[in-house]
Amino acid sequence: MGKGIDFVKAILKNTIEKKGFDQCLKNFNVVSAGNGNCKVEFTVAEEHLNAGGTLHGGFTTTLVDCISGCALMTRGDVAPGVSVDLHVSFMKAAFPGDVVIVDAKTIRAGRTLAFLEVELRKKDEGSVIAQGQHTKFIGQI
Amino acid sequence: MGKGIDFVKAILKNTIEKKGFDQCLKNFNVVSAGNGNCKVEFTVAEEHLNAGGTLHGGFTTTLVDCISGCALMTRGDVAPGVSVDLHVSFMKAAFPGDVVIVDAKTIRAGRTLAFLEVELRKKDEGSVIAQGQHTKFIGQI
Amino acid sequence: MGKGIDFVKAILKNTIEKKGFDQCLKNFNVVSAGNGNCKVEFTVAEEHLNAGGTLHGGFTTTLVDCISGCALMTRGDVAPGVSVDLHVSFMKAAFPGDVVIVDAKTIRAGRTLAFLEVELRKKDEGSVIAQGQHTKFIGQI
Amino acid sequence: MGKGIDFVKAILKNTIEKKGFDQCLKNFNVVSAGNGNCKVEFTVAEEHLNAGGTLHGGFTTTLVDCISGCALMTRGDVAPGVSVDLHVSFMKAAFPGDVVIVDAKTIRAGRTLAFLEVELRKKDEGSVIAQGQHTKFIGQI
Repeated sequence: MGKGIDFVKAILKNTIEKKGFDQCLKNFNVVSAGNGNCKVEFTVAEEHLNAGGTLHGGFTTTLVDCISGCALMTRGDVAPGVSVDLHVSFMKAAFPGDVVIVDAKTIRAGRTLAFLEVELRKKDEGSVIAQGQHTKFIGQI
Repeated sequence: MGKGIDFVKAILKNTIEKKGFDQCLKNFNVVSAGNGNCKVEFTVAEEHLNAGGTLHGGFTTTLVDCISGCALMTRGDVAPGVSVDLHVSFMKAAFPGDVVIVDAKTIRAGRTLAFLEVELRKKDEGSVIAQGQHTKFIGQI
Repeated sequence: MGKGIDFVKAILKNTIEKKGFDQCLKNFNVVSAGNGNCKVEFTVAEEHLNAGGTLHGGFTTTLVDCISGCALMTRGDVAPGVSVDLHVSFMKAAFPGDVVIVDAKTIRAGRTLAFLEVELRKKDEGSVIAQGQHTKFIGQI
Repeated sequence: MGKGIDFVKAILKNTIEKKGFDQCLKNFNVVSAGNGNCKVEFTVAEEHLNAGGTLHGGFTTTLVDCISGCALMTRGDVAPGVSVDLHVSFMKAAFPGDVVIVDAKTIRAGRTLAFLEVELRKKDEGSVIAQGQHTKFIGQI
């Protein structure tokens, strides 16, 4: 059975409380979730910036990793799995105050591997900031 | 003119103080730096973990991004640039207490693009945790 | 000025005649082209197979490379450029006789870099075989 | 039991004879092979070129795919497997007559996944043309 928006909110709340690296995901708004997809948005703030004052590439890749993981889990029939490969192309800078939409989709989930794609866009103008592909191992190790 | 270990320590200190995303790089030890290469080490701690209690993939990719950037800057003749593509393969889990070596190398730096590779290894057994490739644009935008 | 389907057909015809590696692109049907996008289809045949008798991963990556290049050139305002990074996730096997659609899109083309995505799908069932991201340098070297 | 140079020569000979896509691997010289590694060399010729007259990116990725597969098989204890992810960074052009060394290594091979890296260098000057990472699924599907 698939799971929706409250399920993803609970996952994010739970992981943020753990004092691990996912603490960087606080202040996110879950826009939609279900059927292998998940869309969240956030406003670029000081804690997301690199030394040049723009959205940090490491934070962008962390979002590709985490929000695609949320998307996968909404299917309800798969383990969260572990990352195998992650690739991101960085297309445009984002600045403090920009509202960014992170749109993650499950392209395919088989018995052992899941393939996910993520697009980050600016909410106002719709321009693509980054695109990522994330492969997870979801079988038994 | 190339730059060495004190140069990278100063970069990391400066960026961590900025309250941006690079704050996650605190508690790092710079082992060596110079001629386009940079090696740092850290001990996996609570703040680096995912919900499963192992080294977070988003943190791993952040290290691939940042430490390769430090490696590039030791050349002394290039701008820090902006990320174009970043790819990471995740090979093995790391656990709290593991000492991890992050070994970044400049493979090629031309007039407009730089190509960097990064390997994360466990210090005790030498096993590879992750390998990454990072492409930066270093020309004038 | 953008260019369309006849433009791409001419590009493919010209490059196939050159006796280079693009000879492997013969027997392709250009379905649509224009505005940075290009869609072609072909039937999996003996010359596209690996030793296991399925669509060869090297051929899949060649398609990601070439058809995204065609997509980029339909914009009419950019040089063909050179490849910087190429990433492919392989999701499903394709077999002799399968009709495969290769769907390439320009996500962003700036002054120096272009970012392209490509999806390979089976025409009959619509399932995704592979997804790729291709970054090209289109400025002056 | 590991396998060596004659084993890889036999693999290449066998696959080239099959009339599939691997025909493009003819005229290769196997320099060394064993223990998860494989090194081959070839001279850039007309059949390897793109429309611009340099080594074709699609051929480069095909080499990353195939020669890393040969490297993996020299271990003797693993199935050839299927590709999951492949990433290549293109660093420098190669021209007709250049002798290119393709150097593939197994970084890690577990029960279900193998991680391989490949470097293409010019034999005379040693400069890196391209670097790739290849992830294969080697468990039971």
